[in-house]
Amino acid sequence: MAKRRMRANFEFLEKIGVDRWCFHDRDIAPDGETLEESNKNLDEVVALAKELQGTKIRPLWGTAQLFMHPRYMHGGATSSELGVYAYAAAQVKKAMEVTHDLGGENYVFWGGREGYQSLLNTDMERELDHLARFCEAAVAYKKKIGFIGTLLIEPKPQEPTKHQYDWDAATTANFLRKYGLIGEFKLNIECNHATLSGHSCHHELETARINGLLGNIDANTGDPQIGWDTDQFMTDISEATMVMISVIRNGGLAPGGFNFDAKLRRESTEVEDIFLAHISGMDTLARGLRSAAKLIQDGSLAELVRKRYQSFDTEIGAQIEAGKGDFETLEKLAMKWGEPKVPSAKQELAEMIFQSAL
Amino acid sequence: MAKRRMRANFEFLEKIGVDRWCFHDRDIAPDGETLEESNKNLDEVVALAKELQGTKIRPLWGTAQLFMHPRYMHGGATSSELGVYAYAAAQVKKAMEVTHDLGGENYVFWGGREGYQSLLNTDMERELDHLARFCEAAVAYKKKIGFIGTLLIEPKPQEPTKHQYDWDAATTANFLRKYGLIGEFKLNIECNHATLSGHSCHHELETARINGLLGNIDANTGDPQIGWDTDQFMTDISEATMVMISVIRNGGLAPGGFNFDAKLRRESTEVEDIFLAHISGMDTLARGLRSAAKLIQDGSLAELVRKRYQSFDTEIGAQIEAGKGDFETLEKLAMKWGEPKVPSAKQELAEMIFQSAL
Amino acid sequence: MAKRRMRANFEFLEKIGVDRWCFHDRDIAPDGETLEESNKNLDEVVALAKELQGTKIRPLWGTAQLFMHPRYMHGGATSSELGVYAYAAAQVKKAMEVTHDLGGENYVFWGGREGYQSLLNTDMERELDHLARFCEAAVAYKKKIGFIGTLLIEPKPQEPTKHQYDWDAATTANFLRKYGLIGEFKLNIECNHATLSGHSCHHELETARINGLLGNIDANTGDPQIGWDTDQFMTDISEATMVMISVIRNGGLAPGGFNFDAKLRRESTEVEDIFLAHISGMDTLARGLRSAAKLIQDGSLAELVRKRYQSFDTEIGAQIEAGKGDFETLEKLAMKWGEPKVPSAKQELAEMIFQSAL
Amino acid sequence: MAKRRMRANFEFLEKIGVDRWCFHDRDIAPDGETLEESNKNLDEVVALAKELQGTKIRPLWGTAQLFMHPRYMHGGATSSELGVYAYAAAQVKKAMEVTHDLGGENYVFWGGREGYQSLLNTDMERELDHLARFCEAAVAYKKKIGFIGTLLIEPKPQEPTKHQYDWDAATTANFLRKYGLIGEFKLNIECNHATLSGHSCHHELETARINGLLGNIDANTGDPQIGWDTDQFMTDISEATMVMISVIRNGGLAPGGFNFDAKLRRESTEVEDIFLAHISGMDTLARGLRSAAKLIQDGSLAELVRKRYQSFDTEIGAQIEAGKGDFETLEKLAMKWGEPKVPSAKQELAEMIFQSAL
Repeated sequence: MAKRRMRANFEFLEKIGVDRWCFHDRDIAPDGETLEESNKNLDEVVALAKELQGTKIRPLWGTAQLFMHPRYMHGGATSSELGVYAYAAAQVKKAMEVTHDLGGENYVFWGGREGYQSLLNTDMERELDHLARFCEAAVAYKKKIGFIGTLLIEPKPQEPTKHQYDWDAATTANFLRKYGLIGEFKLNIECNHATLSGHSCHHELETARINGLLGNIDANTGDPQIGWDTDQFMTDISEATMVMISVIRNGGLAPGGFNFDAKLRRESTEVEDIFLAHISGMDTLARGLRSAAKLIQDGSLAELVRKRYQSFDTEIGAQIEAGKGDFETLEKLAMKWGEPKVPSAKQELAEMIFQSAL
Repeated sequence: MAKRRMRANFEFLEKIGVDRWCFHDRDIAPDGETLEESNKNLDEVVALAKELQGTKIRPLWGTAQLFMHPRYMHGGATSSELGVYAYAAAQVKKAMEVTHDLGGENYVFWGGREGYQSLLNTDMERELDHLARFCEAAVAYKKKIGFIGTLLIEPKPQEPTKHQYDWDAATTANFLRKYGLIGEFKLNIECNHATLSGHSCHHELETARINGLLGNIDANTGDPQIGWDTDQFMTDISEATMVMISVIRNGGLAPGGFNFDAKLRRESTEVEDIFLAHISGMDTLARGLRSAAKLIQDGSLAELVRKRYQSFDTEIGAQIEAGKGDFETLEKLAMKWGEPKVPSAKQELAEMIFQSAL
Repeated sequence: MAKRRMRANFEFLEKIGVDRWCFHDRDIAPDGETLEESNKNLDEVVALAKELQGTKIRPLWGTAQLFMHPRYMHGGATSSELGVYAYAAAQVKKAMEVTHDLGGENYVFWGGREGYQSLLNTDMERELDHLARFCEAAVAYKKKIGFIGTLLIEPKPQEPTKHQYDWDAATTANFLRKYGLIGEFKLNIECNHATLSGHSCHHELETARINGLLGNIDANTGDPQIGWDTDQFMTDISEATMVMISVIRNGGLAPGGFNFDAKLRRESTEVEDIFLAHISGMDTLARGLRSAAKLIQDGSLAELVRKRYQSFDTEIGAQIEAGKGDFETLEKLAMKWGEPKVPSAKQELAEMIFQSAL
Repeated sequence: MAKRRMRANFEFLEKIGVDRWCFHDRDIAPDGETLEESNKNLDEVVALAKELQGTKIRPLWGTAQLFMHPRYMHGGATSSELGVYAYAAAQVKKAMEVTHDLGGENYVFWGGREGYQSLLNTDMERELDHLARFCEAAVAYKKKIGFIGTLLIEPKPQEPTKHQYDWDAATTANFLRKYGLIGEFKLNIECNHATLSGHSCHHELETARINGLLGNIDANTGDPQIGWDTDQFMTDISEATMVMISVIRNGGLAPGGFNFDAKLRRESTEVEDIFLAHISGMDTLARGLRSAAKLIQDGSLAELVRKRYQSFDTEIGAQIEAGKGDFETLEKLAMKWGEPKVPSAKQELAEMIFQSAL
């Protein structure tokens, strides 16, 4: 069955004209009775995938699925049980190897069980320390095998856990900084995870970008009135445009790119539905890119923003931005200048310009 | 009027037997026509406060109110306007001086307007850089005037802004780490702000504690079905108990403590209501402390947690926690050990033990 | 000042070419010392408005502002205090009179304080009974003065109350049905109130329409990540299209129409901003109407929906829809038919068709 | 396996001393190849259950599981497919029969798939009409077989659907009133469903009670920071006390009662955990009942509420409550009385009294 699904995968990729694919290890090959057997199963399917890939197709990323098997009920790297920690490490090791073997661009960590259900029975500090040790070991192993892709953490606030340790981009950045991992990982931002954490997708992308961490995008969407991950295909042009603005500002995503992490609604049962959904998702991103390009070429939105901050584009402004504005100096300026004149933020005009470009 | 309110404040403090108070500069003394006049107003009221304080009472913290005056509509330290940045600095400078003069324990930053309403018209990266410059200047000035209290940032996710830059404890920790400010600030965690950011108050306190940042607590509460800050007096014993567990684990809060940041409901109009509310808030914290102490003395919750992680309290566990668990070693262990046995997380028992202590 | 604002209002209406306006009584004329004086103030401003209206302009609706004055802290019709109930009735009486006098199309009830802050101190049943008595009296008085416009209730879930009695369209419909008021009121659906109650604006409009209650629309918008009413101008074309689909299905809104109930961001301080915002809001609705018309003319979305339910467009389906499908009959059919074939819901295709029309 | 589970069920009931149980048809007996075979499976397990029940134990309620099998992907009574509607009817018919046969007190409808995923492909009005026809048929069949228990609808806002037609108590009451079903159904209020719909559990219970619809309670709890149904055992005494206040005001729940609809956390894997959880849930309700009784005996909370509304306990108040307060009369009173005196709502005192009783 796993092999049939892999053949269907490549048939589908060919039909929709896509040259990248993504995988969870246990989703492409079934668990065996033992780790050795699971690895063997994976090797067999990966060999087939390699054959099917040919010269044009390769993984955007691979990852280890550390959340469905009951052994991972308390997490993998943050499980309270040492044996599970070791098992998770072994599974990630293998998943990194096959991702590397398949020519994968990046490697993703999505810690769906790395979090807690209740603080009453959890030692959060110890679990975070374990997670950091695990990440360090992953970095070391990546280097050892010569994998040059990016290690990506995919933030998500919760579900199925009450709190997932990589809650959002800022939380994950804090984790990486605290444990000295900041140069070794980037983020895979998922739009539906962003909205679940109370942020717009654009906010998460910008937060990742500003922190030098924007590596890949799960271009799906959720429903703003729904409190769980629905993983729908993105169809909203205005959201796609904002996503593309971040990507352009980031100078693209290479190595990295877009994957959907979207699924058909359970009620969409015809074969054509899976084609329609992917075509719709790709068209939406394409339209978003065109709108973003139009906005940038037009330049009026950028000009509106530039004008807002122009008082800082002065000699005094530059000194303050360079860290030379101590409180005494600033107080003197404030007293000299008197009541400051505060310009309009022009939000309605900004929205009008934005909508006109769609 | 400002002086009458200050006298009433101290009469109230005396009547309820409290020896710490907190203030926003503009709430205790009115804005003047100019900064100089505002400073003069403040000096006059502060002189009275100093006299009324006597030897026993002093501020838990002071702060500058940088959000009600229209000049701060775009923020203070993150305003798009240079003149406002300077004005805010002058106001914080003065507020730090009077806090120091009054013997204040700490100084608080609550950036109610430091954020954005829309990313379309905002240069978030530049605004965050400005905020960091401002914080650096505050640190320098604090040292210059010999103020030894802690500088506290009070996270809040939003309201009135769509996004406030110190969204929650982890976001603020990331900001402090990114800009090299991590040793210079701690956090003032407010329970209602915690719930608005999607976390329990206990989570925010633990996150602050684990990051070495727990400095003070705004012990108020919100309503879980309400999406804005209601600043109610905390009356829930179970929440108070969890708050106190964090405080005890933190070895207390000194310098620092609890303030309410709670207000009467607008519909509570009798004079006795303000007494009832404060008494209720204090009693709740006292009952929380007793329950926390009971839980700790009883020890069964701590024992439950210890047992969960006991597989790490082994020689191999210690090596892994010391960073000596590379992937090859862990894979060998995983293969040697076979399928790990995963113990129960005992959440229901933990909840039962917790509730029994209340 | 009130008169100057009224003149400015009509100057603005003329400049943007709009022939309907809306008002809260206390927003156009200030409170006096007594009710008589307040009424006199209102009369004076209304006389001016009547003169300025000319022959083309008239109110879309008028309403009484029963939420800002401290006397309404516990509500108007649902205040715990009899005197306030009477005062609110007198104020609504007068507001209905002047709305009628100005040729207003409809009269609106927005019960911003008709709700509770806590169930602990509230007799919800008694307050709802009072609200029903109040509504009955309003109906009687409307008929007495010969006002033929619609009485509209504007649902909102909360803010500033924890729970507002007209939470959403369905809750308000239940209230109207329970108290026999169902033929006497319709609803004024506000999009931002819809999203605050956990529904899409389209859902609320459809719920109102299906219950025969769609009377007017506050065409504003909120931010899906914000838990309070932001009252922004609607700029999203896809939302506007869905709004217009409901309006077309409803056969229009007459008597009734659209008002914005939107305000400039506090940070939008230039005079042109108010023009830009209104133009943007009107253009958005116009584009929504065009997209809705395009969708309807195209017909493929309607056809997709028709096909989904076509098994009911049969003789047996018609009998069941006519109430002749008892359980014994249905069981026999189920056994005869065997496992039903369930067609795809085609959600992705529906979204694709919808987005293509924008 | 089904029989072993049923034996285990009764062993468990006996051990924890409970004399009521609840069931979904397909959870106690597996689906067969055909409806006839499924019915036969059910009969076999029900016969065993009847034997095991003895004279003391019987179902609190039974229900049909119309949401897991793919045939119900679009709903049962609201499926777009006629064959599914008939199948659902046949299944409910059988479930009602076996519930009656087992001496069940009530019969529950939980419409987990009766709703929509998207309005774009849904005819909401037609689906609601179908649901009403289905409910009418259920009422008729109940009477036909002489089942005297209550038919209960269990509101839930969403999950897995975006919108479930019985969103909350008020929405369901509106449905029942619109279709003339108001005397035939009551509600089964679930606390976690309440909080998901934006209400406190106490609010939903009071709304049901006031509408004469409070029939049964799913006494579970959710996490206020989680947007999906967690179905945890209730352990919070203050929530349990509020639940019990509603039950007492309702004069109890007979026929009807409490069931948990709570499940162990997936991570609670020891056998004792299921006992601990149920004991904890029962103790919580017992403590809630004691606290509620204490509050009622003490009387000070009731007195606080009585005083708030005492201005209506006058002759004029009584006339107004009797519907004799027309607007002219009320205006005269308002002018005669002048500015009303508005008493304090005493919320903090109410909370203090409430907490002191726990």
